[in-house]
Amino acid sequence: MTDELIFFTNPMSRGRIARWMLEEAGCAYRTEVLDFGPDMKSPGYLAINPMGKVPAILHEGKIVTEAAAICAYLADAFPEAGLAPPLSERAAYYRWMFFAAGPVEASLSNKAFGFEVPTERRGMVGYGSIENVVDALDYAVTQSEYIAGDRFTAADVYVGSQIGWGMMFGTLEKRPAFEAYWQRISSRPAAVRAREIDDALAPPKA
Amino acid sequence: MTDELIFFTNPMSRGRIARWMLEEAGCAYRTEVLDFGPDMKSPGYLAINPMGKVPAILHEGKIVTEAAAICAYLADAFPEAGLAPPLSERAAYYRWMFFAAGPVEASLSNKAFGFEVPTERRGMVGYGSIENVVDALDYAVTQSEYIAGDRFTAADVYVGSQIGWGMMFGTLEKRPAFEAYWQRISSRPAAVRAREIDDALAPPKA
Repeated sequence: MTDELIFFTNPMSRGRIARWMLEEAGCAYRTEVLDFGPDMKSPGYLAINPMGKVPAILHEGKIVTEAAAICAYLADAFPEAGLAPPLSERAAYYRWMFFAAGPVEASLSNKAFGFEVPTERRGMVGYGSIENVVDALDYAVTQSEYIAGDRFTAADVYVGSQIGWGMMFGTLEKRPAFEAYWQRISSRPAAVRAREIDDALAPPKA
Repeated sequence: MTDELIFFTNPMSRGRIARWMLEEAGCAYRTEVLDFGPDMKSPGYLAINPMGKVPAILHEGKIVTEAAAICAYLADAFPEAGLAPPLSERAAYYRWMFFAAGPVEASLSNKAFGFEVPTERRGMVGYGSIENVVDALDYAVTQSEYIAGDRFTAADVYVGSQIGWGMMFGTLEKRPAFEAYWQRISSRPAAVRAREIDDALAPPKA
Protein backbone atom coordinates (compact mmCIF):
# COMPACT_ATOMS: atom_id res chain seq x y z
CA MET A 1 0.00 0.00 0.00
CA THR A 2 1.51 3.27 -1.10
CA ASP A 3 1.07 6.48 0.83
CA GLU A 4 0.41 8.40 -2.36
CA LEU A 5 -2.85 10.32 -2.28
CA ILE A 6 -5.06 9.38 -5.22
CA PHE A 7 -7.86 11.68 -6.29
CA PHE A 8 -10.75 10.20 -8.30
CA THR A 9 -12.67 12.84 -10.14
CA ASN A 10 -14.28 14.17 -13.25
CA PRO A 11 -13.80 17.83 -14.23
CA MET A 12 -17.57 18.19 -14.71
CA SER A 13 -18.52 17.17 -11.18
CA ARG A 14 -18.37 18.14 -7.52
CA GLY A 15 -14.83 16.86 -7.81
CA ARG A 16 -13.97 20.49 -8.51
CA ILE A 17 -14.64 21.23 -4.85
CA ALA A 18 -12.24 18.52 -3.76
CA ARG A 19 -9.59 19.70 -6.26
CA TRP A 20 -9.73 23.21 -4.81
CA MET A 21 -9.32 21.76 -1.32
CA LEU A 22 -6.38 19.61 -2.40
CA GLU A 23 -4.71 22.68 -3.86
CA GLU A 24 -5.37 24.65 -0.65
CA ALA A 25 -3.97 21.80 1.47
CA GLY A 26 -0.82 21.85 -0.65
CA CYS A 27 -0.42 18.08 -0.57
CA ALA A 28 0.97 15.96 -3.40
CA TYR A 29 -1.67 13.91 -5.19
CA ARG A 30 -2.27 11.96 -8.37
CA THR A 31 -5.48 12.47 -10.34
CA GLU A 32 -7.51 9.65 -11.86
CA VAL A 33 -10.20 10.98 -14.19
CA LEU A 34 -13.28 8.75 -14.47
CA ASP A 35 -15.93 9.11 -17.13
CA PHE A 36 -19.56 9.18 -16.13
CA GLY A 37 -21.27 5.85 -16.75
CA PRO A 38 -19.36 2.55 -17.00
CA ASP A 39 -16.12 3.95 -15.54
CA MET A 40 -17.77 5.04 -12.30
CA LYS A 41 -19.86 1.85 -12.13
CA SER A 42 -16.95 -0.56 -12.65
CA PRO A 43 -16.35 -3.11 -9.86
CA GLY A 44 -12.93 -1.59 -9.22
CA TYR A 45 -14.35 1.83 -8.57
CA LEU A 46 -17.41 0.60 -6.70
CA ALA A 47 -14.96 -0.88 -4.20
CA ILE A 48 -13.76 2.68 -3.63
CA ASN A 49 -17.20 4.24 -3.60
CA PRO A 50 -20.28 2.00 -3.60
CA MET A 51 -22.28 5.08 -4.66
CA GLY A 52 -20.44 4.94 -8.00
CA LYS A 53 -19.72 8.64 -8.10
CA VAL A 54 -16.88 11.09 -7.77
CA PRO A 55 -15.09 12.69 -6.00
CA ALA A 56 -13.28 10.24 -3.78
CA ILE A 57 -9.79 10.17 -2.35
CA LEU A 58 -7.60 7.30 -1.25
CA HIS A 59 -5.05 8.33 1.36
CA GLU A 60 -2.88 6.00 3.44
CA GLY A 61 -5.21 3.13 2.62
CA LYS A 62 -8.30 5.03 3.70
CA ILE A 63 -11.12 6.22 1.50
CA VAL A 64 -13.06 9.45 1.79
CA THR A 65 -16.11 10.23 -0.33
CA GLU A 66 -18.55 13.17 -0.23
CA ALA A 67 -17.07 16.54 -1.18
CA ALA A 68 -17.70 18.05 2.26
CA ALA A 69 -16.09 15.10 4.04
CA ILE A 70 -13.05 15.37 1.77
CA CYS A 71 -12.69 19.04 2.73
CA ALA A 72 -12.98 18.29 6.45
CA TYR A 73 -10.65 15.31 6.22
CA LEU A 74 -7.88 17.08 4.33
CA ALA A 75 -7.98 20.07 6.68
CA ASP A 76 -7.27 17.73 9.61
CA ALA A 77 -4.84 15.44 7.80
CA PHE A 78 -2.66 18.35 6.63
CA PRO A 79 -2.73 20.66 9.65
CA GLU A 80 0.25 22.71 8.42
CA ALA A 81 -2.06 24.34 5.86
CA GLY A 82 -4.11 25.85 8.70
CA LEU A 83 -7.47 25.13 7.10
CA ALA A 84 -9.36 24.05 10.21
CA PRO A 85 -9.88 25.94 13.47
CA PRO A 86 -8.53 24.49 16.73
CA LEU A 87 -10.72 21.72 18.14
CA SER A 88 -12.31 23.97 20.76
CA GLU A 89 -13.36 26.57 18.18
CA ARG A 90 -15.26 24.61 15.58
CA ALA A 91 -18.81 25.80 16.24
CA ALA A 92 -19.34 27.86 13.08
CA TYR A 93 -17.03 25.59 11.10
CA TYR A 94 -19.13 22.45 11.53
CA ARG A 95 -22.40 24.36 11.66
CA TRP A 96 -22.13 25.80 8.19
CA MET A 97 -20.44 22.82 6.60
CA PHE A 98 -23.27 20.53 7.67
CA PHE A 99 -25.81 23.20 6.82
CA ALA A 100 -24.45 23.36 3.28
CA ALA A 101 -24.21 19.57 2.93
CA GLY A 102 -27.74 19.07 4.26
CA PRO A 103 -30.38 21.81 3.89
CA VAL A 104 -28.61 23.83 1.15
CA GLU A 105 -27.84 20.85 -1.06
CA ALA A 106 -31.28 19.27 -0.53
CA SER A 107 -33.29 22.44 -1.10
CA LEU A 108 -31.36 23.61 -4.16
CA SER A 109 -31.55 20.12 -5.70
CA ASN A 110 -35.28 19.91 -5.08
CA LYS A 111 -35.73 23.34 -6.61
CA ALA A 112 -33.87 22.17 -9.72
CA PHE A 113 -36.26 19.22 -9.98
CA GLY A 114 -39.36 21.27 -9.24
CA PHE A 115 -40.09 19.37 -6.00
CA GLU A 116 -42.04 21.63 -3.67
CA VAL A 117 -42.77 20.75 -0.07
CA PRO A 118 -46.36 21.77 0.77
CA THR A 119 -46.44 24.60 3.34
CA GLU A 120 -48.28 22.54 5.95
CA ARG A 121 -45.65 19.78 5.82
CA ARG A 122 -42.56 21.96 6.05
CA GLY A 123 -41.95 20.89 9.62
CA MET A 124 -41.27 17.37 8.32
CA VAL A 125 -38.38 18.29 6.10
CA GLY A 126 -35.02 19.26 7.56
CA TYR A 127 -34.70 22.40 5.48
CA GLY A 128 -38.20 23.81 5.96
CA SER A 129 -38.44 26.09 2.94
CA ILE A 130 -35.87 27.20 0.42
CA GLU A 131 -36.52 30.83 1.41
CA ASN A 132 -35.47 29.97 4.97
CA VAL A 133 -32.37 28.24 3.72
CA VAL A 134 -31.29 31.13 1.51
CA ASP A 135 -31.87 33.67 4.29
CA ALA A 136 -29.86 31.57 6.75
CA LEU A 137 -27.06 31.25 4.20
CA ASP A 138 -27.08 35.01 3.74
CA TYR A 139 -26.77 35.35 7.52
CA ALA A 140 -23.90 32.84 7.52
CA VAL A 141 -21.76 34.74 5.00
CA THR A 142 -22.25 38.14 6.64
CA GLN A 143 -21.23 37.36 10.24
CA SER A 144 -17.49 37.54 9.66
CA GLU A 145 -14.92 37.78 6.88
CA TYR A 146 -14.95 34.03 6.37
CA ILE A 147 -17.64 31.54 7.21
CA ALA A 148 -15.97 30.18 10.34
CA GLY A 149 -14.44 33.45 11.56
CA ASP A 150 -11.53 35.68 10.63
CA ARG A 151 -9.58 33.03 8.76
CA PHE A 152 -10.21 31.11 5.59
CA THR A 153 -10.94 27.42 6.29
CA ALA A 154 -12.07 24.26 4.57
CA ALA A 155 -15.63 25.36 5.34
CA ASP A 156 -15.17 28.25 2.88
CA VAL A 157 -14.08 25.84 0.17
CA TYR A 158 -17.19 23.74 0.61
CA VAL A 159 -19.85 26.32 1.47
CA GLY A 160 -18.34 28.79 -0.97
CA SER A 161 -18.45 26.24 -3.77
CA GLN A 162 -22.13 25.59 -3.09
CA ILE A 163 -22.77 29.32 -3.30
CA GLY A 164 -20.64 29.97 -6.37
CA TRP A 165 -22.02 26.99 -8.27
CA GLY A 166 -25.57 27.60 -7.12
CA MET A 167 -25.42 31.11 -8.58
CA MET A 168 -23.77 29.89 -11.76
CA PHE A 169 -26.41 27.18 -12.32
CA GLY A 170 -29.25 29.46 -11.33
CA THR A 171 -30.46 27.37 -8.39
CA LEU A 172 -29.34 30.05 -5.91
CA GLU A 173 -30.44 33.64 -6.36
CA LYS A 174 -27.64 36.19 -6.84
CA ARG A 175 -27.66 38.29 -3.70
CA PRO A 176 -25.00 40.95 -3.11
CA ALA A 177 -23.84 39.12 0.04
CA PHE A 178 -23.28 35.91 -1.90
CA GLU A 179 -21.50 37.67 -4.73
CA ALA A 180 -19.21 39.58 -2.37
CA TYR A 181 -18.35 36.42 -0.45
CA TRP A 182 -17.73 34.41 -3.60
CA GLN A 183 -15.54 37.20 -4.98
CA ARG A 184 -13.50 37.16 -1.76
CA ILE A 185 -12.70 33.48 -1.85
CA SER A 186 -12.75 32.39 -5.50
CA SER A 187 -9.77 34.53 -6.47
CA ARG A 188 -7.40 32.72 -4.12
CA PRO A 189 -4.38 31.25 -5.91
CA ALA A 190 -5.38 27.66 -5.04
CA ALA A 191 -8.91 28.24 -6.38
CA VAL A 192 -7.56 29.67 -9.62
CA ARG A 193 -5.06 26.82 -9.99
CA ALA A 194 -7.76 24.18 -9.36
CA ARG A 195 -10.03 25.77 -11.96
CA GLU A 196 -7.26 25.86 -14.55
CA ILE A 197 -6.40 22.20 -14.01
CA ASP A 198 -10.02 21.08 -14.30
CA ASP A 199 -10.75 23.35 -17.24
CA ALA A 200 -7.83 21.78 -19.09
CA LEU A 201 -9.26 18.31 -18.37
CA ALA A 202 -12.81 19.21 -19.39
CA PRO A 203 -14.11 18.48 -22.89
CA PRO A 204 -13.63 21.50 -25.16
CA LYS A 205 -16.63 23.79 -25.47
CA ALA A 206 -18.47 23.54 -28.76
CA MET B 1 -21.77 35.63 29.05
CA THR B 2 -21.97 32.45 31.08
CA ASP B 3 -20.09 29.32 30.10
CA GLU B 4 -23.15 27.18 30.77
CA LEU B 5 -24.11 25.02 27.82
CA ILE B 6 -27.73 25.64 26.82
CA PHE B 7 -29.56 23.08 24.74
CA PHE B 8 -32.60 24.23 22.73
CA THR B 9 -34.81 21.35 21.77
CA ASN B 10 -38.19 19.75 21.50
CA PRO B 11 -38.63 16.09 22.49
CA MET B 12 -40.44 15.41 19.20
CA SER B 13 -37.58 16.53 16.94
CA ARG B 14 -34.07 15.77 15.79
CA GLY B 15 -33.15 17.30 19.13
CA ARG B 16 -33.17 13.70 20.37
CA ILE B 17 -29.98 13.11 18.42
CA ALA B 18 -28.29 16.07 20.11
CA ARG B 19 -29.54 14.96 23.55
CA TRP B 20 -28.00 11.55 23.05
CA MET B 21 -24.71 13.19 22.06
CA LEU B 22 -24.81 15.51 25.09
CA GLU B 23 -25.31 12.49 27.34
CA GLU B 24 -22.43 10.66 25.63
CA ALA B 25 -20.18 13.70 26.00
CA GLY B 26 -20.95 13.80 29.71
CA CYS B 27 -21.03 17.58 29.84
CA ALA B 28 -23.33 19.63 32.08
CA TYR B 29 -26.10 21.39 30.19
CA ARG B 30 -29.43 23.10 30.71
CA THR B 31 -32.39 22.26 28.49
CA GLU B 32 -34.76 24.83 27.03
CA VAL B 33 -37.80 23.20 25.47
CA LEU B 34 -39.36 25.14 22.60
CA ASP B 35 -42.77 24.45 21.14
CA PHE B 36 -43.16 24.16 17.39
CA GLY B 37 -44.64 27.30 15.89
CA PRO B 38 -44.41 30.70 17.57
CA ASP B 39 -41.76 29.64 20.11
CA MET B 40 -39.28 28.61 17.43
CA LYS B 41 -40.14 31.63 15.27
CA SER B 42 -39.73 34.23 18.04
CA PRO B 43 -37.13 36.96 17.42
CA GLY B 44 -35.18 35.74 20.45
CA TYR B 45 -34.81 32.25 19.06
CA LEU B 46 -34.30 33.36 15.46
CA ALA B 47 -31.19 35.16 16.74
CA ILE B 48 -29.94 31.72 17.82
CA ASN B 49 -31.06 29.91 14.69
CA PRO B 50 -32.37 31.90 11.72
CA MET B 51 -33.83 28.62 10.42
CA GLY B 52 -36.27 28.72 13.36
CA LYS B 53 -35.81 25.10 14.26
CA VAL B 54 -34.29 22.91 16.90
CA PRO B 55 -31.88 21.54 17.97
CA ALA B 56 -29.33 24.23 18.71
CA ILE B 57 -26.73 24.63 21.42
CA LEU B 58 -25.12 27.73 22.88
CA HIS B 59 -21.70 27.04 24.34
CA GLU B 60 -19.15 29.63 25.45
CA GLY B 61 -20.99 32.25 23.45
CA LYS B 62 -20.97 30.18 20.29
CA ILE B 63 -23.96 28.66 18.55
CA VAL B 64 -24.14 25.33 16.80
CA THR B 65 -27.17 24.20 14.81
CA GLU B 66 -27.75 21.09 12.65
CA ALA B 67 -27.83 17.81 14.56
CA ALA B 68 -24.77 16.43 12.78
CA ALA B 69 -22.75 19.58 13.47
CA ILE B 70 -23.71 19.42 17.15
CA CYS B 71 -22.40 15.85 17.31
CA ALA B 72 -19.12 16.76 15.61
CA TYR B 73 -18.70 19.91 17.70
CA LEU B 74 -19.31 18.25 21.07
CA ALA B 75 -16.93 15.40 20.26
CA ASP B 76 -14.14 17.92 19.71
CA ALA B 77 -15.11 20.30 22.52
CA PHE B 78 -15.17 17.51 25.12
CA PRO B 79 -12.21 15.35 24.05
CA GLU B 80 -12.10 13.48 27.37
CA ALA B 81 -15.20 11.56 26.27
CA GLY B 82 -13.19 10.03 23.41
CA LEU B 83 -15.96 10.42 20.84
CA ALA B 84 -13.86 11.52 17.86
CA PRO B 85 -10.88 9.75 16.28
CA PRO B 86 -7.48 11.46 16.25
CA LEU B 87 -7.18 14.14 13.55
CA SER B 88 -5.16 11.91 11.22
CA GLU B 89 -7.74 9.10 11.33
CA ARG B 90 -10.99 10.76 10.43
CA ALA B 91 -11.59 9.36 6.96
CA ALA B 92 -14.56 7.09 7.76
CA TYR B 93 -15.74 9.43 10.52
CA TYR B 94 -16.33 12.41 8.24
CA ARG B 95 -17.26 10.28 5.27
CA TRP B 96 -20.28 8.67 6.89
CA MET B 97 -21.37 11.71 8.87
CA PHE B 98 -21.58 13.80 5.74
CA PHE B 99 -23.09 10.91 3.83
CA ALA B 100 -25.88 10.66 6.42
CA ALA B 101 -26.40 14.44 6.58
CA GLY B 102 -26.50 14.73 2.80
CA PRO B 103 -27.59 11.79 0.62
CA VAL B 104 -29.32 9.77 3.36
CA GLU B 105 -31.33 12.68 4.77
CA ALA B 106 -32.22 14.01 1.31
CA SER B 107 -33.24 10.68 -0.19
CA LEU B 108 -35.29 9.50 2.80
CA SER B 109 -37.06 12.89 3.01
CA ASN B 110 -37.85 12.84 -0.68
CA LYS B 111 -39.17 9.31 -0.36
CA ALA B 112 -41.47 10.44 2.47
CA PHE B 113 -42.81 13.19 0.18
CA GLY B 114 -43.10 10.95 -2.83
CA PHE B 115 -40.53 12.96 -4.82
CA GLU B 116 -38.90 10.69 -7.38
CA VAL B 117 -35.90 11.70 -9.45
CA PRO B 118 -36.36 10.44 -13.03
CA THR B 119 -33.79 7.76 -13.90
CA GLU B 120 -32.21 9.79 -16.70
CA ARG B 121 -31.57 12.73 -14.36
CA ARG B 122 -30.04 10.82 -11.46
CA GLY B 123 -26.60 12.11 -12.28
CA MET B 124 -27.82 15.60 -11.35
CA VAL B 125 -28.76 14.79 -7.79
CA GLY B 126 -26.10 14.15 -5.17
CA TYR B 127 -27.65 10.94 -3.94
CA GLY B 128 -28.38 9.30 -7.29
CA SER B 129 -31.11 6.85 -6.30
CA ILE B 130 -32.41 5.82 -2.90
CA GLU B 131 -31.45 2.21 -3.69
CA ASN B 132 -27.84 3.34 -4.09
CA VAL B 133 -27.98 5.22 -0.82
CA VAL B 134 -29.42 2.31 1.14
CA ASP B 135 -26.86 -0.11 -0.30
CA ALA B 136 -24.00 2.26 0.55
CA LEU B 137 -25.37 2.66 4.07
CA ASP B 138 -25.50 -1.11 4.41
CA TYR B 139 -21.86 -1.22 3.32
CA ALA B 140 -21.02 1.49 5.86
CA VAL B 141 -22.39 -0.37 8.87
CA THR B 142 -20.81 -3.69 7.98
CA GLN B 143 -17.16 -2.67 7.55
CA SER B 144 -16.31 -2.59 11.24
CA GLU B 145 -17.92 -2.78 14.67
CA TYR B 146 -18.69 0.93 14.62
CA ILE B 147 -19.09 3.23 11.70
CA ALA B 148 -15.68 4.90 12.01
CA GLY B 149 -13.75 1.83 13.14
CA ASP B 150 -13.38 -0.23 16.30
CA ARG B 151 -14.58 2.46 18.67
CA PHE B 152 -17.91 4.17 19.17
CA THR B 153 -17.80 7.81 18.03
CA ALA B 154 -20.07 10.79 17.47
CA ALA B 155 -20.57 9.46 13.93
CA ASP B 156 -22.46 6.49 15.41
CA VAL B 157 -24.75 8.84 17.32
CA TYR B 158 -25.65 10.70 14.16
CA VAL B 159 -25.64 7.98 11.51
CA GLY B 160 -27.16 5.50 13.94
CA SER B 161 -30.00 7.89 14.75
CA GLN B 162 -30.75 8.30 11.05
CA ILE B 163 -30.90 4.52 10.72
CA GLY B 164 -32.92 3.87 13.88
CA TRP B 165 -35.43 6.63 13.14
CA GLY B 166 -35.61 5.82 9.47
CA MET B 167 -36.62 2.25 10.31
CA MET B 168 -39.07 3.44 12.96
CA PHE B 169 -40.77 5.89 10.58
CA GLY B 170 -40.72 3.45 7.69
CA THR B 171 -38.59 5.60 5.38
CA LEU B 172 -35.66 3.15 5.64
CA GLU B 173 -36.20 -0.54 4.98
CA LYS B 174 -35.43 -2.88 7.88
CA ARG B 175 -32.37 -4.81 6.81
CA PRO B 176 -30.64 -7.23 9.19
CA ALA B 177 -27.44 -5.17 9.00
CA PHE B 178 -29.28 -2.02 10.08
CA GLU B 179 -31.12 -3.78 12.88
CA ALA B 180 -27.95 -5.40 14.22
CA TYR B 181 -26.09 -2.08 14.14
CA TRP B 182 -28.93 -0.18 15.77
CA GLN B 183 -29.19 -2.86 18.47
CA ARG B 184 -25.47 -2.50 19.15
CA ILE B 185 -25.54 1.22 19.74
CA SER B 186 -29.03 2.10 20.99
CA SER B 187 -28.68 0.17 24.22
CA ARG B 188 -25.77 2.26 25.46
CA PRO B 189 -26.42 3.88 28.85
CA ALA B 190 -26.26 7.41 27.41
CA ALA B 191 -28.76 6.50 24.67
CA VAL B 192 -31.17 5.01 27.19
CA ARG B 193 -30.78 8.02 29.49
CA ALA B 194 -31.41 10.47 26.64
CA ARG B 195 -34.53 8.59 25.56
CA GLU B 196 -35.91 8.58 29.09
CA ILE B 197 -35.38 12.31 29.51
CA ASP B 198 -37.05 13.14 26.20
CA ASP B 199 -39.87 10.66 26.72
CA ALA B 200 -40.65 12.35 30.03
CA LEU B 201 -40.77 15.74 28.26
CA ALA B 202 -42.95 14.51 25.39
CA PRO B 203 -46.72 14.93 25.44
CA PRO B 204 -48.43 11.83 26.87
CA LYS B 205 -49.62 9.32 24.30
CA ALA B 206 -53.38 9.21 23.78
